[in-house]
Amino acid sequence: MEDIKVVVENLMELLAERKFAEIRKLLNDANPVDVATVLGEVPEEKLLILYRMLPKGEAADVFSEMDPEEQETLIRAFNEREIKEVIEEMYIDDAVDLVEEMPAVVVNKILRHAEPETRKQINELLKYPEDSAGSVMTTEYMSLKTDMTVADAFERIRRTADEKEDIYTCYVINPHRKLQGTVSLKDMFLTSKDTLIGDLMETNLISANTLDDQEAVAMTMAKYDLNTIPIVDKEGRLVGIVTIDDAIDVIQEENTEDFEKMAAVMPQDKSYFDTGVFQHVKNRLPWLLILMISSMLTGTIIERYEIAFQTMPLLVALMPMITGTCGNCGTQSSTLIIRGMALGEVRLSDYFKAVWKEIRVSIIVGISLAIVNMIRIYLQYKDVKLAIVIALTLIFCVVVAKLMGCSLPMLAKKLNLDPAIMASPMLSTLVDVSSVWIYFQIATIVIQKSTS
Amino acid sequence: MEDIKVVVENLMELLAERKFAEIRKLLNDANPVDVATVLGEVPEEKLLILYRMLPKGEAADVFSEMDPEEQETLIRAFNEREIKEVIEEMYIDDAVDLVEEMPAVVVNKILRHAEPETRKQINELLKYPEDSAGSVMTTEYMSLKTDMTVADAFERIRRTADEKEDIYTCYVINPHRKLQGTVSLKDMFLTSKDTLIGDLMETNLISANTLDDQEAVAMTMAKYDLNTIPIVDKEGRLVGIVTIDDAIDVIQEENTEDFEKMAAVMPQDKSYFDTGVFQHVKNRLPWLLILMISSMLTGTIIERYEIAFQTMPLLVALMPMITGTCGNCGTQSSTLIIRGMALGEVRLSDYFKAVWKEIRVSIIVGISLAIVNMIRIYLQYKDVKLAIVIALTLIFCVVVAKLMGCSLPMLAKKLNLDPAIMASPMLSTLVDVSSVWIYFQIATIVIQKSTS
Repeated sequence: MEDIKVVVENLMELLAERKFAEIRKLLNDANPVDVATVLGEVPEEKLLILYRMLPKGEAADVFSEMDPEEQETLIRAFNEREIKEVIEEMYIDDAVDLVEEMPAVVVNKILRHAEPETRKQINELLKYPEDSAGSVMTTEYMSLKTDMTVADAFERIRRTADEKEDIYTCYVINPHRKLQGTVSLKDMFLTSKDTLIGDLMETNLISANTLDDQEAVAMTMAKYDLNTIPIVDKEGRLVGIVTIDDAIDVIQEENTEDFEKMAAVMPQDKSYFDTGVFQHVKNRLPWLLILMISSMLTGTIIERYEIAFQTMPLLVALMPMITGTCGNCGTQSSTLIIRGMALGEVRLSDYFKAVWKEIRVSIIVGISLAIVNMIRIYLQYKDVKLAIVIALTLIFCVVVAKLMGCSLPMLAKKLNLDPAIMASPMLSTLVDVSSVWIYFQIATIVIQKSTS
Repeated sequence: MEDIKVVVENLMELLAERKFAEIRKLLNDANPVDVATVLGEVPEEKLLILYRMLPKGEAADVFSEMDPEEQETLIRAFNEREIKEVIEEMYIDDAVDLVEEMPAVVVNKILRHAEPETRKQINELLKYPEDSAGSVMTTEYMSLKTDMTVADAFERIRRTADEKEDIYTCYVINPHRKLQGTVSLKDMFLTSKDTLIGDLMETNLISANTLDDQEAVAMTMAKYDLNTIPIVDKEGRLVGIVTIDDAIDVIQEENTEDFEKMAAVMPQDKSYFDTGVFQHVKNRLPWLLILMISSMLTGTIIERYEIAFQTMPLLVALMPMITGTCGNCGTQSSTLIIRGMALGEVRLSDYFKAVWKEIRVSIIVGISLAIVNMIRIYLQYKDVKLAIVIALTLIFCVVVAKLMGCSLPMLAKKLNLDPAIMASPMLSTLVDVSSVWIYFQIATIVIQKSTS
């Protein structure tokens, strides 16, 4: 992949020398995903010429894999026949993704040239809410009936497989399109040809609803090792399937979103470089401002303890160590809990179990850190009072930080908010406030005790 | 899933009342994944009784899905025939995972009762290094030869499908087992029965090597939408395939590892609750200590500026806002870069492109934050000097933080280290040091200017 630039240069040279046969061979030998990547890097005015040199069967596959920018350029340049070909060849879920990305004028051009049946299907799928199972499903599944024999099923598969996105799990429906069961092609191979589909089918079904969250559907597929999952409507009628390649994309997108939220960045659909400078600013600035306001709270607390740090200036020098360490402690707990919830390993009902675990962990961690620091501070400053203040602060603050780190994400979940927004920066700010307060409170008490 | 406890209680009641037929029905109707979860919650002494009530064809599936603890309990209790059955029924990659998890005495019991062929295969697979493609592959793929017809292939599939983990992509090999091409079952259905496999096969192959990193292999499968990928040895001989369900597990594990590293937790294989308190402490304490030592550096810098904050005590109150904001800025950049690299969207050769983007973003973000704060501080404290110090500090520090955030992960990658270890906490500490230094440096200059 590092040598895309070389491939593009090579292609441009061949084009300049009009060596079309060589270009065709080069494009034909490569995987559609790679061809799409390369075409994404060629100058816009060469895109259509190169696209037209693609072997006919492969052109739509390459088109599906392209970025929206290049897709738009091509559609604007396509003639009527080319649009028709590409839309009818694409899987219906990819066509829907395309329509969702394009500006209105391009969408019109697409829908005007699509077959009535395709247009209807696209319009149906466009109705599902974003991030729902319906929005990622395809309607091109293989359906069978209970009274078919395996031989009938094979015949039907042979006749219609070309338009189906997946034929390896077939869905058995009744005349009302209610989902009755599933049959894998493997099971059909392993039985005699006159077996009835109704006798062969698996009726212990795992399915999802059109309005289910796409992430939940993807996690179900991962849990049960499914390559496709049936999607049913409110009445239990089969309306589509989600395929594993789309489920993986969903899992990766959701992971990226969690990473972004935990880093106080508003989630975005585009990749790092495809996002413009101003969009980056727009994604980052709001959280920075919110967190800044809340960090002023920490400042207000510090102002109140001016006497403490005027009496014992070293308190200021040790403050970053206290807030940093407690912030890290909180982040450790919150990340483990957030990830555990995302993977389904930690549930809301486990709250007290998690708190109990965090209390024990934080006491051991807090005492360990306290001992190390007491020794360090005594050796460095020969100041017993300061060593005691730091040690006590660390024990209290670590426990508080870890309890917050484990409670906040679960509280968010309970309130139907995203646990990830409670992660690192949001939490750090809260931990900062509380640890600075505990720190100066303990310092004041120790100083007063010793001066009185 | 929330009602597992209910199911377990129900099962225990039925068992106490000796209603075995009902138990059998209950277990038979549920998905093996769910049965394994339920059996993970029953008292150890009831496990074998319940396991023996599973329908014969399903027992091995349930066993594969269980946690190592329950698997060990069962194997220790199994008679010779039960061990044989389970091992021979399991997919070979699951059997290898099992052997890797069990203590030596249990491994011996397993291998003693396995068929010689199975034992040989398990031993072969055990040789591959951890996290390599070889360690997650299965040898149970469907192989074909170029001179077979589609009818021959169907016959072969019918005869051998039962032992294969995937039959939907068949691998065409020559007599030396060199990989020649792939044929999908779908393509076989769409052509006539006397077509030669050699004419039908796709020769533009995407494969991986046994020693390739498992994450790279999983990402390749995701990129090219593959449900299986062939794994070849150094000589190009086909030795196994990786299936998409295992690839998803790899992707999720690697994501979890990145989350953990970015939260300064040592990566662990077990889930949150399966990890003991002392293991949690061991995973969290080392990084806390390392980061604590480095945060002392920040303290040392602050000590040097005692005069500055004695003259202008408000500088201390505003310090958490400065370090917090800059830490967040750095984390935003590092997270976006780390995630971009994990997804293959940001490459090392893009370094200067990324730096240029971050410089522009950080200048806009820095100036925006500076303006907001200047106004706020002027209004709150009516102190122009302080407002100027804070504004200048924010602009400089945000640029430095974002440059560090984008450079450190890429530097780590360049040095073949994991970019994720350079993330949040490690970076925060470095950003702390530099922003505190810049802050007091600017403050000292402004104070000196105004007093001279």
